[in-house]
Amino acid sequence: MKKLFAEFFGTFWLVFGGCGSAVLAAGYPEVGIGLLGVSLAFGLTVLTMAYAVGRISGGHFNPAVSVGMVIGGRLPVHDLSGYVIVQVLGATAAAAVLYFIATGSGSFVAGGFASNGYDELSPGGYSMPAAISMEVVMTAFFVFIILASTAKKSSAGFAPIAIGMTLTVIHLVSIPVTNTSVNPARSTGVAIFADTAALTQLWVFWVAPLAGAVVGALVWRAIYKDSD
Amino acid sequence: MKKLFAEFFGTFWLVFGGCGSAVLAAGYPEVGIGLLGVSLAFGLTVLTMAYAVGRISGGHFNPAVSVGMVIGGRLPVHDLSGYVIVQVLGATAAAAVLYFIATGSGSFVAGGFASNGYDELSPGGYSMPAAISMEVVMTAFFVFIILASTAKKSSAGFAPIAIGMTLTVIHLVSIPVTNTSVNPARSTGVAIFADTAALTQLWVFWVAPLAGAVVGALVWRAIYKDSD
Amino acid sequence: MKKLFAEFFGTFWLVFGGCGSAVLAAGYPEVGIGLLGVSLAFGLTVLTMAYAVGRISGGHFNPAVSVGMVIGGRLPVHDLSGYVIVQVLGATAAAAVLYFIATGSGSFVAGGFASNGYDELSPGGYSMPAAISMEVVMTAFFVFIILASTAKKSSAGFAPIAIGMTLTVIHLVSIPVTNTSVNPARSTGVAIFADTAALTQLWVFWVAPLAGAVVGALVWRAIYKDSD
Amino acid sequence: MKKLFAEFFGTFWLVFGGCGSAVLAAGYPEVGIGLLGVSLAFGLTVLTMAYAVGRISGGHFNPAVSVGMVIGGRLPVHDLSGYVIVQVLGATAAAAVLYFIATGSGSFVAGGFASNGYDELSPGGYSMPAAISMEVVMTAFFVFIILASTAKKSSAGFAPIAIGMTLTVIHLVSIPVTNTSVNPARSTGVAIFADTAALTQLWVFWVAPLAGAVVGALVWRAIYKDSD
Repeated sequence: MKKLFAEFFGTFWLVFGGCGSAVLAAGYPEVGIGLLGVSLAFGLTVLTMAYAVGRISGGHFNPAVSVGMVIGGRLPVHDLSGYVIVQVLGATAAAAVLYFIATGSGSFVAGGFASNGYDELSPGGYSMPAAISMEVVMTAFFVFIILASTAKKSSAGFAPIAIGMTLTVIHLVSIPVTNTSVNPARSTGVAIFADTAALTQLWVFWVAPLAGAVVGALVWRAIYKDSD
Repeated sequence: MKKLFAEFFGTFWLVFGGCGSAVLAAGYPEVGIGLLGVSLAFGLTVLTMAYAVGRISGGHFNPAVSVGMVIGGRLPVHDLSGYVIVQVLGATAAAAVLYFIATGSGSFVAGGFASNGYDELSPGGYSMPAAISMEVVMTAFFVFIILASTAKKSSAGFAPIAIGMTLTVIHLVSIPVTNTSVNPARSTGVAIFADTAALTQLWVFWVAPLAGAVVGALVWRAIYKDSD
Repeated sequence: MKKLFAEFFGTFWLVFGGCGSAVLAAGYPEVGIGLLGVSLAFGLTVLTMAYAVGRISGGHFNPAVSVGMVIGGRLPVHDLSGYVIVQVLGATAAAAVLYFIATGSGSFVAGGFASNGYDELSPGGYSMPAAISMEVVMTAFFVFIILASTAKKSSAGFAPIAIGMTLTVIHLVSIPVTNTSVNPARSTGVAIFADTAALTQLWVFWVAPLAGAVVGALVWRAIYKDSD
Repeated sequence: MKKLFAEFFGTFWLVFGGCGSAVLAAGYPEVGIGLLGVSLAFGLTVLTMAYAVGRISGGHFNPAVSVGMVIGGRLPVHDLSGYVIVQVLGATAAAAVLYFIATGSGSFVAGGFASNGYDELSPGGYSMPAAISMEVVMTAFFVFIILASTAKKSSAGFAPIAIGMTLTVIHLVSIPVTNTSVNPARSTGVAIFADTAALTQLWVFWVAPLAGAVVGALVWRAIYKDSD
């Protein structure tokens, strides 16, 4: 039960901090934080919550990561469905609170509401093959780095920095392509509130990150399992 | 006594570094640091001072955090009033020095002087309900992460990074809404020097952060107290 | 074999993250990450992969670093050629995937494709002597800091932070001069796809970083070898 | 002798990285790193070199810090003059190399060359009293945090992060006021090459940082000496 609360709070924090910075502060006139600020916000939500509750739940905050941890032998498979459910609930709750706050400004327009997309819903107009490739590659590296940096032989304590900053790198590269998912829960939470067709493209941001997570975890298992 | 000096210096540093970057450097023409730079400055003041004097006073630098630590069982309640008083004094002293330096430029206009506000005093024109919601949610997560990342079972030494970067995330999201308080001492120090009606709204930035701190600490106690 | 995979994945990640951020996100309208975002991306790819696979291969991801480690006595010379080959392969594979994704936007123009250059191929129009000086000095310091921060007497676990952030400093200074190489594999991978004469200048970005690596490693050996 | 080399290289790196980013990359059109990038560059040069050679020389790279360490009982007074001399030499060497590289761009104008100043030589036109106040306050906090975060009872290994990020905070606030010194060696190195009257104001950037260092070290000694 503690684990599920940890995943709920962590995913809430990831979406509220990451998507919140995108919706409220990225495009603020003159002094907005831009895509760099959003990239740091996403990475730092994971860094901070991993230090807070990582030892309790593992600190996934992301269904693709949880799937990768099952394949990597770090999460019992019977825990998976519970993790995924509370992750989606946490993301949705965060999006709802964010939506309520955002409407407190007279000038608010939901627009994409930090949702993910391809083609006309891609920030830079990238095609579906480009979007899927990016999400698969990025999630594969994300899961690989998580498994490798949390292996028993790794430097204890530094993994949250490595993992959070990996998510920052991912965003620094891929926001223009898909607005960066690598996390189906995050994509689902905000798609519900988007004033676009984001929900019709949501399946891509379940399939591609999950496929990437499987690839990343399998590669790690094939090569480095005995380094665990 | 050492504890009180530590909280005084720490809160001075938080306000001088955080609000100082906002007043002097955020809107500097062409190359200004923007809201991202201000967010990093606030977070890094806490990170740095927590490494310096965290082992002495706990490194709160914030009345809302001190209240949360009392509820979480980390600060004896009879220390609370002393902590809060020196935090407010430190914040006010920092604001005074900052004001003196700022007036050393011929073009200085106090304006909001990095104070917090809602409605017409919100940077993005956010309403009072939005402002209060943001401050409550953010302070709750702040106190929750502090309690969780400083628990005995957590990775020793990393907590200042987690705590400082949480404050950075908070600013990355919420500067447009309230100019970000989550810290009544910080709000009080600069409101005194603001050339706006900031003082009339100051009560909100005591009530909302304190309420958030109570929520965050109670949630942590209810679920994770035995993980301390 | 595990070492070679680690160097392949690590160099892929460095190029995909670093050059990817430059190609896709640096100049994004209004909210682009700029040279600061690119500098952080490069540094963070090394920081993150060094935590992931540093204990396996040493975490070089760069032929100049591998040469420096041979001189510094950290890498057996018979491992060098294998390392360099997979580093170049990893960089090239990353550039290919990046190219494929980038073309998924209708408006893509390869241009320099984040390649390195001097004179008309230098972002700021710097001459060849300036470019070579910069690359030599920067690689020398890079290798010096790597050797010193990974010495046995150093603080275990912090080296990936020191090394990654050194690469960030290097980029913060030298992108305008050469677009920053200090890494012949990174230069080679993207030069292949550049729509400029980058390949004709590529030799400079092998010779100068390697020369710098030799200087940095020899200085370290001469002065600090017994501190290893 | 090893100590003196360490201080020479470290101060070279600080000036080459920090002032280099300011001269070459801060104002780069469209995608320049701005004052935020410069602030990070200065802080990260200290963070990285402190991990590299901090255990050898203490990692001061700054005459004001060395004076503070003497007062704080961390540096024997007979080492002080040697430290200061190589710090100034390192800073000057870095400025010379930087100048040579900068002239490799046809459009280079030395201007202030990242030197420090007040009145018409202050980036934001700040008066001498404001400039002196800022330098004294900032150096005092810098030395205080260094002494406190490197005390024996502090978390081993984290001090370079705390110290480097303190220098980043200092720059985030004070670049508009004095272009940020807190380091007489750094001020001297670039003033020599400035195409302004920077040398006539240089005395201020020896007196004020040294005064601040004395204040910071005395405060620490008075209150926390027994926590060493």
